[in-house]
Amino acid sequence: MKQVKLGLLGFGTVGGGTVEIINQTLSEIERRLGGYATLEIVQIAVRDLTKARSADTKNIPITNDPMAVVNNPEVDIVVELMGGTGLAKQCLETAIDNGKHIVTANKALIAEFGNELFAKAKAKNVIIAYEAAVAGGIPIIKALREGLAANKIEWLAGIINGTGNYILTEMQKPGADFAKVLKVAQDLGYAEADPTFDVEGIDAAHKLTILASIAFGIELQFDKVYTEGITKITAADIRFAQKLGYEIKHLGMASRTPNGYSLRVHPTLVPKTVLLSHVKGVMNAVMVQGNHVGPTLYNGPGAGAGPTASAVVADIIDIVRASSQDSAAQIPALGFALDQLQSAPVEPIENIKTAFYLRFYAEDHAGVLAKVTAILAKNAVSIEHLHQEPNEDNEEDATLVMITNKVLESKMNEALAELSQMSEIDTPIQRIRVDALGQKSK
Amino acid sequence: MKQVKLGLLGFGTVGGGTVEIINQTLSEIERRLGGYATLEIVQIAVRDLTKARSADTKNIPITNDPMAVVNNPEVDIVVELMGGTGLAKQCLETAIDNGKHIVTANKALIAEFGNELFAKAKAKNVIIAYEAAVAGGIPIIKALREGLAANKIEWLAGIINGTGNYILTEMQKPGADFAKVLKVAQDLGYAEADPTFDVEGIDAAHKLTILASIAFGIELQFDKVYTEGITKITAADIRFAQKLGYEIKHLGMASRTPNGYSLRVHPTLVPKTVLLSHVKGVMNAVMVQGNHVGPTLYNGPGAGAGPTASAVVADIIDIVRASSQDSAAQIPALGFALDQLQSAPVEPIENIKTAFYLRFYAEDHAGVLAKVTAILAKNAVSIEHLHQEPNEDNEEDATLVMITNKVLESKMNEALAELSQMSEIDTPIQRIRVDALGQKSK
Repeated sequence: MKQVKLGLLGFGTVGGGTVEIINQTLSEIERRLGGYATLEIVQIAVRDLTKARSADTKNIPITNDPMAVVNNPEVDIVVELMGGTGLAKQCLETAIDNGKHIVTANKALIAEFGNELFAKAKAKNVIIAYEAAVAGGIPIIKALREGLAANKIEWLAGIINGTGNYILTEMQKPGADFAKVLKVAQDLGYAEADPTFDVEGIDAAHKLTILASIAFGIELQFDKVYTEGITKITAADIRFAQKLGYEIKHLGMASRTPNGYSLRVHPTLVPKTVLLSHVKGVMNAVMVQGNHVGPTLYNGPGAGAGPTASAVVADIIDIVRASSQDSAAQIPALGFALDQLQSAPVEPIENIKTAFYLRFYAEDHAGVLAKVTAILAKNAVSIEHLHQEPNEDNEEDATLVMITNKVLESKMNEALAELSQMSEIDTPIQRIRVDALGQKSK
Repeated sequence: MKQVKLGLLGFGTVGGGTVEIINQTLSEIERRLGGYATLEIVQIAVRDLTKARSADTKNIPITNDPMAVVNNPEVDIVVELMGGTGLAKQCLETAIDNGKHIVTANKALIAEFGNELFAKAKAKNVIIAYEAAVAGGIPIIKALREGLAANKIEWLAGIINGTGNYILTEMQKPGADFAKVLKVAQDLGYAEADPTFDVEGIDAAHKLTILASIAFGIELQFDKVYTEGITKITAADIRFAQKLGYEIKHLGMASRTPNGYSLRVHPTLVPKTVLLSHVKGVMNAVMVQGNHVGPTLYNGPGAGAGPTASAVVADIIDIVRASSQDSAAQIPALGFALDQLQSAPVEPIENIKTAFYLRFYAEDHAGVLAKVTAILAKNAVSIEHLHQEPNEDNEEDATLVMITNKVLESKMNEALAELSQMSEIDTPIQRIRVDALGQKSK
């Protein structure tokens, strides 16, 4: 029986979860591996040797030098759970040089430096597995790279940041607003003290970068992702959206365009007839449209010790199996052979056509609506749905809410610039994109 | 470059879809395989040589003798899409004897004869892949065998028959009833002329058998699955369920019990707070609860040429990769090594504890409800929710609807037997199981 030896870099939430899985579920894993191999953690690198740990480390040697782990000749697989793109990258480069396979949950590292890391790994004939980097416990990387391998992926859209989805879900409750809910999320540990990474969509953009590459077979292009956060979404928007049959979700979206690809993260109105719209709280979900399979959806917890470590250990098992394979037959890191990646451009957001939700206050008298619709029409924006109601705060104003048909972002920008000039309208005008995710628009 | 040669048995809907994928998407698949291999269909067996085909067969030799394909020395992988458990089984046995790998979409064959076929395949060192046999295009077998491999699976529950889900969805519409909707489903081609396999749950039981084995690592035990169809569900039940916050779904459910396992297919009230309850129409979805990952859900089309062939071709690609592997490292057919399968008993339904929905007509006068609740209490059935309304058809009767707490099926049987003796109650009493699928009960 092969004794597969693991070296862990990082022993925080996910590191602890990984140790717990191996402590608790190794016999179940061994039933799967059927005597071919077993797993053993032989060294763990931590930042602070004095910190108390919840997981039972059972006398595994602990060091505060991660380089000691990647240089440990005993270690077969390095499990990188330290995070960051500095020291973590250095460690993984050394691990690759030393011929060790890698499992990582580090989405920033893969999204920003994956191209060079994968090339280096291929040259050294080692595997980098990163299922845990996207949507925690949901095996979405596996679904895309293997389960849907017979398809040309047309588009995908995902709730890939649990903090953002928790906030948007809680904002549905009466009296909730963004700031209040963010505070609760921070108190519950769902959001960091500095929530920028989550609420501004950077975390989601890292994950979307990875998903897009393995969906389409393109290089990782984090710098090309259009990224918009959820900080400007109001409880009123959520209420209006629901009244019109939608939920507001913070989506990472990747699609093919006539000349290339669109990669974007932004709040999106999704019709309630789409299953994805019903994903609540900290859960993640990714919808994938394949040309043969049609629409599929993968849902589960996107973070946390158990779910993320579940993906880490599944990757370890995959490496155990795959390392006995002819290396040319192994699944390429991005699902497509590195020398087969395509390089069509990522379109700027101005070239993308979507429907929009618009909300603004306007003076409530004859002629205003006519002026608004004339400006929209001039800019090729047609209205699919219009809702008007009195503004609660100011009885001389009306709240106007509309859903437009699909229009080029650049055209919408022009229309909004012109509308903003109208003295009868309060600026800024709220604008949120709308996507029916493959359902017929209503 | 390896030329992997495929022989198809059957050229109906899925066979045609498989040929179309290879015609249309081979260049995308080759980008994935990166010069390691390519696919070619070298022979197709059909039942009727004269029948017109929609897929372009591009001069692939066609025969009406399936044995010619499994004995064709050129063929590396036999793709069995003929269905049935007679000739198909014979063909696959010969294919295995000839050392050919197998891809099949045949759920009945795997559920009823998988144990012996997998043993035979292992002895001959060939792979049998069957992703297409369960939930069409959803890579649920892969998720269970690989993606969640670090987990002890606690339970799973799935909408695994699209026809049944279509019927229950359509029955929500005003004026619809089972017979009418079934007729529409038959006209649309969603249901067979003889719908027994779908509406009585036999098809779902085949799929559940397979899912349970790979979830728990137990032998395939189709004959032990408790199976109940949807023919007795009325539009009134669907309406009452919705009023109480539930949807009625026809679920295949597998769970661990204190002494073994529970395998069952029956209509189930699922709270609307559970994502699975929102899966509509012909779509399938499987919810899987792992001990580390928590709840995950996989959703997509459960049938049809494109989705099923998508799974067939993904299996072919997997075999191309896996056949270069050390055979001891290959993923076992049921996810767990065959010599590691466990054999705890499948519990009879009488030993299972679930909550129940009950609906019946009772005379609307004082004392009846007291008598009903006394009988229930005597049999350890406690009521969580009670709803009473006048019976539309008979003003002297009331309709009583209740949701009970969890109770042993055998106890519920006793309670219902006693209630049925009451002269004030119209029999039969409608009884449908209720499951919150891991959510806190409301």
